[in-house]
Amino acid sequence: MSGRPAYLAVDWGTTNRRAYAITADGAVVDSLQDDRGVLALAPGDYPVSVAALRQRLGADTIIASGMVGSSRGWREAPYVDVPAGLEQLAAATLEAAPGVHIVPGVALRNGKRPDVMRGEEIQVLGAIRTGAAPPTALFCQPGTHNKWIETAGGAITTFTTVMTGEVFALLGAHGVLAGMLDGAVTDGAAFRRGLRRGIASQNLVATLFEVRAGVLLERLAPSEAAAYASGILIGADVATREDLGRRPVHVLGGGPLGVLYAVAITEAGGTPVVVPDGSATAGIHAIWSYRA
Amino acid sequence: MSGRPAYLAVDWGTTNRRAYAITADGAVVDSLQDDRGVLALAPGDYPVSVAALRQRLGADTIIASGMVGSSRGWREAPYVDVPAGLEQLAAATLEAAPGVHIVPGVALRNGKRPDVMRGEEIQVLGAIRTGAAPPTALFCQPGTHNKWIETAGGAITTFTTVMTGEVFALLGAHGVLAGMLDGAVTDGAAFRRGLRRGIASQNLVATLFEVRAGVLLERLAPSEAAAYASGILIGADVATREDLGRRPVHVLGGGPLGVLYAVAITEAGGTPVVVPDGSATAGIHAIWSYRA
Repeated sequence: MSGRPAYLAVDWGTTNRRAYAITADGAVVDSLQDDRGVLALAPGDYPVSVAALRQRLGADTIIASGMVGSSRGWREAPYVDVPAGLEQLAAATLEAAPGVHIVPGVALRNGKRPDVMRGEEIQVLGAIRTGAAPPTALFCQPGTHNKWIETAGGAITTFTTVMTGEVFALLGAHGVLAGMLDGAVTDGAAFRRGLRRGIASQNLVATLFEVRAGVLLERLAPSEAAAYASGILIGADVATREDLGRRPVHVLGGGPLGVLYAVAITEAGGTPVVVPDGSATAGIHAIWSYRA
Repeated sequence: MSGRPAYLAVDWGTTNRRAYAITADGAVVDSLQDDRGVLALAPGDYPVSVAALRQRLGADTIIASGMVGSSRGWREAPYVDVPAGLEQLAAATLEAAPGVHIVPGVALRNGKRPDVMRGEEIQVLGAIRTGAAPPTALFCQPGTHNKWIETAGGAITTFTTVMTGEVFALLGAHGVLAGMLDGAVTDGAAFRRGLRRGIASQNLVATLFEVRAGVLLERLAPSEAAAYASGILIGADVATREDLGRRPVHVLGGGPLGVLYAVAITEAGGTPVVVPDGSATAGIHAIWSYRA
Protein backbone atom coordinates (compact mmCIF):
# COMPACT_ATOMS: atom_id res chain seq x y z
CA MET A 1 0.00 0.00 0.00
CA SER A 2 2.82 2.38 -0.75
CA GLY A 3 1.73 5.85 -1.83
CA ARG A 4 3.56 8.05 -4.26
CA PRO A 5 6.51 9.89 -2.59
CA ALA A 6 6.27 13.68 -2.48
CA TYR A 7 9.92 14.25 -1.63
CA LEU A 8 13.11 12.61 -0.36
CA ALA A 9 14.52 13.10 3.12
CA VAL A 10 18.29 12.58 3.30
CA ASP A 11 20.26 12.23 6.53
CA TRP A 12 23.63 12.97 4.93
CA GLY A 13 26.44 12.49 7.38
CA THR A 14 30.21 12.33 7.40
CA THR A 15 30.59 8.66 6.50
CA ASN A 16 27.07 7.39 5.80
CA ARG A 17 23.92 8.50 4.06
CA ARG A 18 20.34 7.41 4.65
CA ALA A 19 17.64 8.47 2.19
CA TYR A 20 13.87 8.06 2.58
CA ALA A 21 11.05 8.45 0.06
CA ILE A 22 8.18 10.15 1.93
CA THR A 23 4.57 10.80 1.00
CA ALA A 24 2.76 14.11 1.51
CA ASP A 25 1.25 12.78 4.71
CA GLY A 26 4.62 11.69 6.10
CA ALA A 27 4.70 7.96 5.39
CA VAL A 28 8.08 6.46 4.50
CA VAL A 29 7.52 4.29 1.42
CA ASP A 30 11.09 3.45 0.46
CA SER A 31 14.60 4.00 1.75
CA LEU A 32 18.26 3.24 1.19
CA GLN A 33 21.45 3.48 3.20
CA ASP A 34 24.94 3.63 1.75
CA ASP A 35 28.45 4.87 2.43
CA ARG A 36 28.23 7.93 0.18
CA GLY A 37 28.84 10.29 3.09
CA VAL A 38 30.55 13.65 2.80
CA LEU A 39 34.03 12.15 3.08
CA ALA A 40 33.38 9.91 0.05
CA LEU A 41 32.28 12.77 -2.23
CA ALA A 42 34.09 15.62 -3.95
CA PRO A 43 32.07 18.83 -4.49
CA GLY A 44 31.52 17.94 -8.15
CA ASP A 45 30.07 14.53 -7.25
CA TYR A 46 26.88 15.85 -5.63
CA PRO A 47 24.76 16.60 -8.75
CA VAL A 48 25.30 13.08 -10.11
CA SER A 49 24.71 11.58 -6.68
CA VAL A 50 21.45 13.51 -6.27
CA ALA A 51 20.24 12.52 -9.75
CA ALA A 52 20.80 8.87 -8.85
CA LEU A 53 18.86 9.28 -5.59
CA ARG A 54 15.95 10.88 -7.44
CA GLN A 55 15.82 8.10 -10.01
CA ARG A 56 16.15 5.34 -7.44
CA LEU A 57 13.57 6.68 -4.95
CA GLY A 58 11.14 8.43 -7.31
CA ALA A 59 10.80 12.06 -6.20
CA ASP A 60 12.51 15.32 -7.14
CA THR A 61 12.38 17.52 -4.07
CA ILE A 62 15.10 16.74 -1.54
CA ILE A 63 15.42 17.93 2.06
CA ALA A 64 18.87 17.02 3.40
CA SER A 65 20.37 17.46 6.85
CA GLY A 66 23.75 16.79 8.40
CA MET A 67 27.34 17.37 7.33
CA VAL A 68 26.32 17.82 3.69
CA GLY A 69 25.66 21.42 4.75
CA SER A 70 29.06 21.93 6.39
CA SER A 71 32.23 23.50 5.03
CA ARG A 72 33.39 19.96 4.24
CA GLY A 73 30.14 19.07 2.47
CA TRP A 74 28.39 20.28 -0.66
CA ARG A 75 27.52 23.83 0.24
CA GLU A 76 27.64 25.50 3.63
CA ALA A 77 24.22 26.18 5.16
CA PRO A 78 24.97 28.83 7.81
CA TYR A 79 24.09 27.92 11.39
CA VAL A 80 20.94 29.34 12.92
CA ASP A 81 21.19 30.62 16.47
CA VAL A 82 19.33 29.23 19.46
CA PRO A 83 16.47 29.16 20.26
CA ALA A 84 15.92 27.02 17.16
CA GLY A 85 12.73 25.09 16.38
CA LEU A 86 11.63 23.36 13.21
CA GLU A 87 10.05 26.55 11.88
CA GLN A 88 13.34 28.46 12.22
CA LEU A 89 15.21 25.63 10.51
CA ALA A 90 12.65 25.51 7.67
CA ALA A 91 13.02 29.25 7.09
CA ALA A 92 16.80 28.99 6.86
CA THR A 93 17.24 26.04 4.51
CA LEU A 94 19.77 26.55 1.74
CA GLU A 95 18.90 25.57 -1.84
CA ALA A 96 22.18 23.96 -2.89
CA ALA A 97 20.81 23.10 -6.34
CA PRO A 98 17.30 23.34 -7.85
CA GLY A 99 14.97 21.41 -5.56
CA VAL A 100 17.70 20.39 -3.07
CA HIS A 101 17.22 22.09 0.29
CA ILE A 102 19.85 21.73 3.00
CA VAL A 103 18.77 22.15 6.63
CA PRO A 104 21.14 24.42 8.59
CA GLY A 105 22.90 23.44 11.79
CA VAL A 106 22.43 25.23 15.10
CA ALA A 107 24.99 27.42 16.88
CA LEU A 108 25.56 28.77 20.36
CA ARG A 109 27.14 31.95 19.13
CA ASN A 110 26.63 34.57 21.79
CA GLY A 111 26.69 32.60 25.04
CA LYS A 112 29.57 32.24 27.42
CA ARG A 113 30.95 29.36 25.34
CA PRO A 114 30.61 28.51 21.64
CA ASP A 115 29.15 25.24 20.35
CA VAL A 116 27.75 23.90 17.08
CA MET A 117 25.64 20.99 15.85
CA ARG A 118 24.68 19.80 12.41
CA GLY A 119 22.26 16.91 11.99
CA GLU A 120 21.38 16.28 15.64
CA GLU A 121 18.82 19.12 15.61
CA ILE A 122 16.61 17.13 13.26
CA GLN A 123 16.69 14.05 15.50
CA VAL A 124 15.81 16.01 18.63
CA LEU A 125 13.07 18.14 17.14
CA GLY A 126 11.72 15.13 15.25
CA ALA A 127 11.45 13.18 18.51
CA ILE A 128 9.41 16.01 19.98
CA ARG A 129 7.26 16.13 16.83
CA THR A 130 6.44 12.41 17.08
CA GLY A 131 5.57 12.76 20.75
CA ALA A 132 8.45 10.50 21.83
CA ALA A 133 9.69 13.37 24.00
CA PRO A 134 7.97 16.43 25.47
CA PRO A 135 8.63 19.91 24.01
CA THR A 136 10.68 20.91 27.07
CA ALA A 137 13.23 18.22 27.76
CA LEU A 138 16.84 17.15 28.15
CA PHE A 139 18.30 14.93 25.41
CA CYS A 140 21.47 12.89 25.13
CA GLN A 141 22.57 11.85 21.64
CA PRO A 142 25.56 9.50 21.89
CA GLY A 143 28.01 9.19 19.02
CA THR A 144 31.56 10.10 18.08
CA HIS A 145 30.64 13.40 19.67
CA ASN A 146 27.98 13.05 22.31
CA LYS A 147 25.52 15.94 22.45
CA TRP A 148 23.56 17.04 25.51
CA ILE A 149 20.68 19.11 24.18
CA GLU A 150 18.08 21.11 26.09
CA THR A 151 14.80 22.18 24.56
CA ALA A 152 12.03 24.50 25.75
CA GLY A 153 8.66 24.78 24.04
CA GLY A 154 9.85 22.71 21.08
CA ALA A 155 13.01 24.73 20.37
CA ILE A 156 16.65 23.96 21.10
CA THR A 157 17.85 26.43 23.72
CA THR A 158 21.33 25.19 24.63
CA PHE A 159 23.60 22.20 24.13
CA THR A 160 27.05 20.80 24.91
CA THR A 161 29.27 18.63 22.74
CA VAL A 162 31.49 16.07 24.46
CA MET A 163 34.17 14.37 22.37
CA THR A 164 33.88 11.11 24.28
CA GLY A 165 33.70 8.68 21.36
CA GLU A 166 36.46 10.39 19.44
CA VAL A 167 38.87 10.32 22.38
CA PHE A 168 38.14 6.62 22.95
CA ALA A 169 38.85 5.89 19.28
CA LEU A 170 42.05 7.96 19.19
CA LEU A 171 43.44 6.41 22.37
CA GLY A 172 42.70 2.92 21.10
CA ALA A 173 44.31 3.49 17.72
CA HIS A 174 47.42 5.47 18.71
CA GLY A 175 49.60 6.18 21.72
CA VAL A 176 50.33 4.25 24.86
CA LEU A 177 46.91 2.55 25.16
CA ALA A 178 46.90 1.42 21.52
CA GLY A 179 46.22 -2.28 21.31
CA MET A 180 44.85 -2.31 24.86
CA LEU A 181 41.34 -1.17 23.90
CA ASP A 182 40.42 -3.81 21.33
CA GLY A 183 38.19 -5.88 23.63
CA ALA A 184 34.39 -5.78 23.62
CA VAL A 185 32.66 -2.80 25.21
CA THR A 186 29.50 -4.11 26.82
CA ASP A 187 27.68 -3.46 30.04
CA GLY A 188 29.27 -5.58 32.76
CA ALA A 189 31.44 -5.41 35.86
CA ALA A 190 34.41 -3.73 34.16
CA PHE A 191 32.24 -1.10 32.46
CA ARG A 192 30.46 -0.35 35.75
CA ARG A 193 33.75 -0.01 37.62
CA GLY A 194 34.98 2.35 34.91
CA LEU A 195 31.76 4.36 35.15
CA ARG A 196 32.20 4.90 38.87
CA ARG A 197 35.81 5.99 38.38
CA GLY A 198 34.79 8.32 35.55
CA ILE A 199 31.88 9.87 37.43
CA ALA A 200 34.16 10.59 40.42
CA SER A 201 37.10 11.66 38.25
CA GLN A 202 38.41 15.19 38.30
CA ASN A 203 40.29 14.67 35.06
CA LEU A 204 39.57 11.71 32.84
CA VAL A 205 42.97 12.04 31.18
CA ALA A 206 44.49 11.17 34.56
CA THR A 207 42.03 8.37 35.27
CA LEU A 208 42.55 6.82 31.83
CA PHE A 209 46.18 6.05 32.62
CA GLU A 210 44.86 3.62 35.22
CA VAL A 211 43.92 1.41 32.29
CA ARG A 212 47.55 0.94 31.36
CA ALA A 213 48.84 0.74 34.92
CA GLY A 214 46.06 -1.67 35.85
CA VAL A 215 46.97 -4.05 33.02
CA LEU A 216 50.72 -3.80 33.73
CA LEU A 217 50.19 -4.50 37.44
CA GLU A 218 47.64 -7.26 36.75
CA ARG A 219 44.77 -5.48 38.45
CA LEU A 220 42.77 -5.26 35.22
CA ALA A 221 42.34 -8.15 32.76
CA PRO A 222 43.42 -7.16 29.23
CA SER A 223 40.04 -8.35 27.94
CA GLU A 224 38.27 -5.92 30.29
CA ALA A 225 40.39 -2.87 29.49
CA ALA A 226 38.21 -1.52 26.67
CA ALA A 227 35.01 -1.73 28.69
CA TYR A 228 36.73 -0.15 31.70
CA ALA A 229 38.15 2.71 29.60
CA SER A 230 34.78 3.27 27.92
CA GLY A 231 33.21 3.37 31.38
CA ILE A 232 35.66 6.06 32.50
CA LEU A 233 34.94 8.20 29.44
CA ILE A 234 31.15 7.80 29.49
CA GLY A 235 31.10 8.20 33.28
CA ALA A 236 32.99 11.49 33.04
CA ASP A 237 30.64 12.54 30.24
CA VAL A 238 27.41 12.00 32.21
CA ALA A 239 29.04 13.58 35.27
CA THR A 240 29.17 16.89 33.38
CA ARG A 241 25.39 17.14 33.97
CA GLU A 242 24.32 18.49 37.30
CA ASP A 243 20.65 18.25 36.35
CA LEU A 244 20.37 14.48 35.93
CA GLY A 245 18.33 14.05 39.07
CA ARG A 246 15.82 16.72 38.18
CA ARG A 247 14.25 15.37 34.98
CA PRO A 248 14.42 12.34 32.71
CA VAL A 249 17.08 12.18 30.01
CA HIS A 250 15.82 11.25 26.55
CA VAL A 251 18.55 9.12 24.99
CA LEU A 252 18.30 9.25 21.22
CA GLY A 253 19.09 5.96 19.56
CA GLY A 254 18.50 2.52 20.94
CA GLY A 255 21.72 0.88 19.70
CA PRO A 256 24.54 -0.50 21.85
CA LEU A 257 25.97 2.94 22.61
CA GLY A 258 22.53 4.20 23.70
CA VAL A 259 22.32 1.28 26.12
CA LEU A 260 25.71 2.14 27.63
CA TYR A 261 24.70 5.77 28.10
CA ALA A 262 21.41 4.70 29.67
CA VAL A 263 23.34 2.57 32.17
CA ALA A 264 25.70 5.49 32.86
CA ILE A 265 22.86 7.96 33.39
CA THR A 266 21.26 5.58 35.87
CA GLU A 267 24.59 5.08 37.67
CA ALA A 268 24.94 8.88 37.96
CA GLY A 269 21.49 9.21 39.53
CA GLY A 270 19.40 10.00 36.46
CA THR A 271 16.46 8.38 34.68
CA PRO A 272 17.07 7.52 31.03
CA VAL A 273 14.21 7.26 28.51
CA VAL A 274 15.45 5.60 25.34
CA VAL A 275 13.95 7.08 22.16
CA PRO A 276 14.25 4.59 19.28
CA ASP A 277 15.91 5.64 16.02
CA GLY A 278 13.70 7.10 13.34
CA SER A 279 13.00 10.62 14.58
CA ALA A 280 14.90 12.28 11.75
CA THR A 281 12.21 11.67 9.12
CA ALA A 282 9.57 13.23 11.37
CA GLY A 283 11.74 16.33 11.74
CA ILE A 284 12.40 16.59 8.05
CA HIS A 285 8.74 16.04 7.26
CA ALA A 286 7.85 19.02 9.42
CA ILE A 287 10.39 21.13 7.56
CA TRP A 288 8.99 19.97 4.21
CA SER A 289 5.48 20.83 5.42
CA TYR A 290 6.52 24.33 6.51
CA ARG A 291 8.12 24.86 3.12
CA ALA A 292 5.32 23.30 1.01
CA MET B 1 90.70 18.80 33.74
CA SER B 2 88.50 15.82 32.98
CA GLY B 3 88.98 12.87 35.31
CA ARG B 4 88.75 9.26 34.29
CA PRO B 5 85.12 8.04 34.16
CA ALA B 6 84.19 5.30 36.62
CA TYR B 7 80.95 4.37 34.91
CA LEU B 8 78.33 5.49 32.39
CA ALA B 9 74.86 6.78 33.33
CA VAL B 10 72.27 6.27 30.59
CA ASP B 11 68.85 7.90 30.55
CA TRP B 12 67.38 5.47 28.01
CA GLY B 13 63.90 6.51 26.96
CA THR B 14 61.34 5.62 24.36
CA THR B 15 62.67 7.77 21.53
CA ASN B 16 65.90 9.29 22.82
CA ARG B 17 68.95 8.27 24.79
CA ARG B 18 71.35 10.42 26.81
CA ALA B 19 74.58 8.91 28.11
CA TYR B 20 77.07 10.47 30.53
CA ALA B 21 80.59 9.46 31.51
CA ILE B 22 80.89 10.04 35.26
CA THR B 23 83.84 9.98 37.63
CA ALA B 24 83.85 8.27 41.02
CA ASP B 25 83.14 11.60 42.69
CA GLY B 26 80.14 12.31 40.42
CA ALA B 27 81.58 14.70 37.86
CA VAL B 28 80.23 14.40 34.32
CA VAL B 29 83.25 14.38 32.01
CA ASP B 30 81.65 13.47 28.70
CA SER B 31 78.20 12.85 27.26
CA LEU B 32 76.23 12.11 24.13
CA GLN B 33 72.62 12.26 23.05
CA ASP B 34 71.11 10.32 20.17
CA ASP B 35 67.88 8.82 18.86
CA ARG B 36 68.71 5.23 19.82
CA GLY B 37 65.70 4.99 22.12
CA VAL B 38 63.80 1.81 22.84
CA LEU B 39 61.60 2.14 19.75
CA ALA B 40 64.67 2.25 17.49
CA LEU B 41 66.19 -0.97 18.86
CA ALA B 42 65.33 -4.66 18.58
CA PRO B 43 66.23 -6.85 21.58
CA GLY B 44 69.28 -8.17 19.75
CA ASP B 45 70.62 -4.67 19.12
CA TYR B 46 71.39 -3.84 22.74
CA PRO B 47 74.74 -5.68 23.18
CA VAL B 48 76.21 -3.95 20.13
CA SER B 49 74.75 -0.63 21.19
CA VAL B 50 76.22 -0.97 24.70
CA ALA B 51 79.64 -1.95 23.32
CA ALA B 52 79.64 1.22 21.20
CA LEU B 53 78.70 3.35 24.22
CA ARG B 54 81.54 1.83 26.26
CA GLN B 55 84.07 2.47 23.54
CA ARG B 56 82.86 5.99 22.86
CA LEU B 57 82.65 7.16 26.50
CA GLY B 58 85.42 5.08 28.08
CA ALA B 59 83.94 3.08 30.95
CA ASP B 60 82.53 -0.41 31.31
CA THR B 61 79.97 -0.24 34.11
CA ILE B 62 76.60 1.10 32.98
CA ILE B 63 73.67 2.24 35.11
CA ALA B 64 70.61 2.78 32.88
CA SER B 65 67.14 4.08 33.71
CA GLY B 66 63.93 4.58 31.77
CA MET B 67 62.00 2.54 29.23
CA VAL B 68 65.03 0.33 28.52
CA GLY B 69 63.80 -1.62 31.57
CA SER B 70 60.19 -1.96 30.35
CA SER B 71 58.52 -4.82 28.55
CA ARG B 72 59.16 -2.91 25.33
CA GLY B 73 62.85 -2.40 26.15
CA TRP B 74 65.84 -4.69 26.60
CA ARG B 75 64.85 -6.62 29.71
CA GLU B 76 62.08 -5.90 32.15
CA ALA B 77 63.24 -4.60 35.53
CA PRO B 78 60.25 -5.25 37.80
CA TYR B 79 58.71 -2.20 39.48
CA VAL B 80 59.51 -1.53 43.13
CA ASP B 81 56.62 -0.47 45.33
CA VAL B 82 56.30 2.85 47.10
CA PRO B 83 57.77 4.14 49.33
CA ALA B 84 60.79 4.10 47.03
CA GLY B 85 64.03 5.97 47.64
CA LEU B 86 67.38 5.73 45.89
CA GLU B 87 68.52 2.95 48.25
CA GLN B 88 65.50 0.79 47.34
CA LEU B 89 66.08 1.43 43.64
CA ALA B 90 69.79 0.55 43.99
CA ALA B 91 68.92 -2.74 45.70
CA ALA B 92 66.51 -3.70 42.91
CA THR B 93 68.56 -2.96 39.79
CA LEU B 94 68.51 -5.69 37.16
CA GLU B 95 71.78 -6.83 35.56
CA ALA B 96 70.63 -7.10 31.93
CA ALA B 97 74.12 -8.11 30.75
CA PRO B 98 77.50 -8.24 32.54
CA GLY B 99 78.11 -4.79 33.99
CA VAL B 100 74.84 -3.29 32.70
CA HIS B 101 72.48 -2.47 35.56
CA ILE B 102 68.93 -1.30 34.85
CA VAL B 103 67.14 0.82 37.45
CA PRO B 104 63.58 -0.39 38.12
CA GLY B 105 60.48 1.75 37.80
CA VAL B 106 58.12 2.47 40.69
CA ALA B 107 54.56 1.18 41.09
CA LEU B 108 51.48 2.04 43.09
CA ARG B 109 50.35 -1.53 43.35
CA ASN B 110 48.21 -1.80 46.44
CA GLY B 111 46.55 1.59 46.73
CA LYS B 112 43.05 2.47 45.66
CA ARG B 113 44.26 3.06 42.11
CA PRO B 114 47.20 1.63 40.15
CA ASP B 115 49.95 3.74 38.60
CA VAL B 116 53.46 3.22 37.24
CA MET B 117 56.52 5.27 36.38
CA ARG B 118 59.81 4.42 34.74
CA GLY B 119 62.54 7.02 34.46
CA GLU B 120 60.89 9.87 36.34
CA GLU B 121 61.93 8.40 39.70
CA ILE B 122 65.58 9.13 38.93
CA GLN B 123 64.86 12.77 38.08
CA VAL B 124 62.86 13.37 41.25
CA LEU B 125 65.18 11.60 43.66
CA GLY B 126 68.18 13.15 41.90
CA ALA B 127 66.72 16.63 42.43
CA ILE B 128 66.42 15.88 46.14
CA ARG B 129 69.98 14.52 46.19
CA THR B 130 71.39 17.73 44.65
CA GLY B 131 69.45 19.87 47.11
CA ALA B 132 67.34 21.43 44.36
CA ALA B 133 64.23 20.20 46.21
CA PRO B 134 63.63 19.21 49.84
CA PRO B 135 63.21 15.51 50.80
CA THR B 136 59.49 16.00 51.40
CA ALA B 137 57.97 17.77 48.43
CA LEU B 138 55.49 17.83 45.57
CA PHE B 139 56.89 17.50 42.05
CA CYS B 140 55.44 18.04 38.59
CA GLN B 141 57.27 16.48 35.68
CA PRO B 142 55.66 17.60 32.41
CA GLY B 143 55.96 15.47 29.29
CA THR B 144 53.89 13.26 27.02
CA HIS B 145 52.57 11.95 30.31
CA ASN B 146 52.76 14.49 33.09
CA LYS B 147 53.59 13.03 36.49
CA TRP B 148 52.61 14.54 39.83
CA ILE B 149 54.95 12.96 42.38
CA GLU B 150 54.93 13.27 46.15
CA THR B 151 57.95 12.44 48.28
CA ALA B 152 58.46 12.12 52.03
CA GLY B 153 61.86 11.81 53.66
CA GLY B 154 63.56 11.34 50.30
CA ALA B 155 61.30 8.53 49.06
CA ILE B 156 58.49 8.55 46.51
CA THR B 157 55.24 7.89 48.37
CA THR B 158 52.54 8.43 45.73
CA PHE B 159 52.11 9.80 42.23
CA THR B 160 49.58 10.39 39.46
CA THR B 161 50.07 10.14 35.70
CA VAL B 162 48.07 12.52 33.50
CA MET B 163 48.07 11.84 29.77
CA THR B 164 47.88 15.53 28.90
CA GLY B 165 50.60 15.71 26.26
CA GLU B 166 49.49 12.52 24.55
CA VAL B 167 45.89 13.66 24.24
CA PHE B 168 47.01 17.01 22.81
CA ALA B 169 49.17 15.21 20.23
CA LEU B 170 46.44 12.72 19.29
CA LEU B 171 43.77 15.39 18.88
CA GLY B 172 46.08 17.50 16.73
CA ALA B 173 47.06 14.63 14.46
CA HIS B 174 43.70 12.87 14.02
CA GLY B 175 39.99 13.53 14.36
CA VAL B 176 37.91 16.65 14.15
CA LEU B 177 40.55 19.03 15.57
CA ALA B 178 43.30 17.75 13.25
CA GLY B 179 44.90 20.62 11.42
CA MET B 180 43.49 23.10 13.94
CA LEU B 181 46.27 22.63 16.51
CA ASP B 182 49.33 23.37 14.41
CA GLY B 183 49.91 26.89 15.71
CA ALA B 184 52.52 27.85 18.29
CA VAL B 185 51.86 26.99 21.92
CA THR B 186 53.32 29.79 24.00
CA ASP B 187 52.27 31.70 27.06
CA GLY B 188 49.93 34.48 26.00
CA ALA B 189 46.32 35.60 26.07
CA ALA B 190 44.93 32.51 24.30
CA PHE B 191 46.86 30.09 26.52
CA ARG B 192 45.69 31.94 29.65
CA ARG B 193 42.07 31.89 28.49
CA GLY B 194 42.39 28.17 27.85
CA LEU B 195 43.92 27.65 31.29
CA ARG B 196 41.00 29.32 33.01
CA ARG B 197 38.51 27.21 31.01
CA GLY B 198 40.48 24.06 31.78
CA ILE B 199 40.82 24.78 35.49
CA ALA B 200 37.06 25.35 35.76
CA SER B 201 36.16 22.48 33.44
CA GLN B 202 34.26 19.47 34.66
CA ASN B 203 35.27 17.44 31.63
CA LEU B 204 38.05 18.59 29.37
CA VAL B 205 36.70 16.44 26.52
CA ALA B 206 33.63 18.69 26.56
CA THR B 207 35.64 21.89 26.87
CA LEU B 208 37.98 20.91 24.04
CA PHE B 209 35.14 20.97 21.50
CA GLU B 210 34.98 24.71 22.14
CA VAL B 211 38.18 24.94 20.13
CA ARG B 212 36.41 23.74 17.00
CA ALA B 213 33.20 25.65 17.65
CA GLY B 214 35.15 28.78 18.50
CA VAL B 215 37.05 28.68 15.20
CA LEU B 216 33.90 27.89 13.17
CA LEU B 217 31.99 30.74 14.80
CA GLU B 218 34.98 33.12 14.56
CA ARG B 219 35.34 33.56 18.28
CA LEU B 220 38.82 32.04 18.30
CA ALA B 221 41.54 32.89 15.76
CA PRO B 222 42.88 29.78 14.03
CA SER B 223 46.40 30.84 14.97
CA GLU B 224 45.41 30.85 18.66
CA ALA B 225 43.65 27.48 18.69
CA ALA B 226 46.68 25.39 19.63
CA ALA B 227 47.62 27.60 22.57
CA TYR B 228 43.98 27.70 23.73
CA ALA B 229 43.63 23.90 23.52
CA SER B 230 46.93 23.40 25.33
CA GLY B 231 45.70 25.78 28.00
CA ILE B 232 42.52 23.73 28.48
CA LEU B 233 44.48 20.49 28.82
CA ILE B 234 47.18 21.86 31.12
CA GLY B 235 44.58 23.80 33.13
CA ALA B 236 42.54 20.65 33.71
CA ASP B 237 45.76 18.85 34.61
CA VAL B 238 46.84 21.29 37.34
CA ALA B 239 43.24 21.44 38.59
CA THR B 240 43.51 17.78 39.61
CA ARG B 241 45.67 18.95 42.51
CA GLU B 242 43.84 20.18 45.55
CA ASP B 243 47.09 20.81 47.42
CA LEU B 244 48.59 23.49 45.19
CA GLY B 245 48.01 26.23 47.72
CA ARG B 246 49.64 24.34 50.57
CA ARG B 247 53.22 23.91 49.36
CA PRO B 248 55.43 24.82 46.43
CA VAL B 249 55.43 22.64 43.33
CA HIS B 250 58.86 21.63 42.06
CA VAL B 251 58.58 21.60 38.28
CA LEU B 252 61.24 19.35 36.80
CA GLY B 253 62.68 20.67 33.56
CA GLY B 254 63.11 24.26 32.55
CA GLY B 255 62.13 23.89 28.88
CA PRO B 256 59.11 25.46 27.17
CA LEU B 257 56.69 22.89 28.60
CA GLY B 258 58.00 23.49 32.10
CA VAL B 259 57.35 27.21 31.63
CA LEU B 260 53.74 26.54 30.57
CA TYR B 261 53.15 24.32 33.61
CA ALA B 262 54.69 26.96 35.89
CA VAL B 263 52.24 29.52 34.47
CA ALA B 264 49.36 27.08 34.94
CA ILE B 265 50.31 26.28 38.54
CA THR B 266 50.42 29.99 39.32
CA GLU B 267 47.04 30.53 37.64
CA ALA B 268 45.58 27.72 39.77
CA GLY B 269 46.84 29.33 42.98
CA GLY B 270 50.12 27.48 43.44
CA THR B 271 53.77 28.45 43.63
CA PRO B 272 56.03 26.79 41.07
CA VAL B 273 59.75 26.26 41.66
CA VAL B 274 61.45 25.33 38.42
CA VAL B 275 64.21 22.73 38.83
CA PRO B 276 66.59 22.84 35.86
CA ASP B 277 67.34 19.68 33.89
CA GLY B 278 70.27 17.59 35.00
CA SER B 279 68.97 15.83 38.10
CA ALA B 280 69.08 12.39 36.51
CA THR B 281 72.86 12.03 36.75
CA ALA B 282 72.77 12.89 40.46
CA GLY B 283 70.17 10.17 41.00
CA ILE B 284 72.12 7.61 39.04
CA HIS B 285 75.34 8.56 40.80
CA ALA B 286 73.71 7.82 44.13
CA ILE B 287 72.63 4.41 42.85
CA TRP B 288 76.14 3.71 41.56
CA SER B 289 77.53 4.73 44.96
CA TYR B 290 75.15 2.41 46.83
CA ARG B 291 76.17 -0.44 44.55
CA ALA B 292 79.92 0.28 44.52
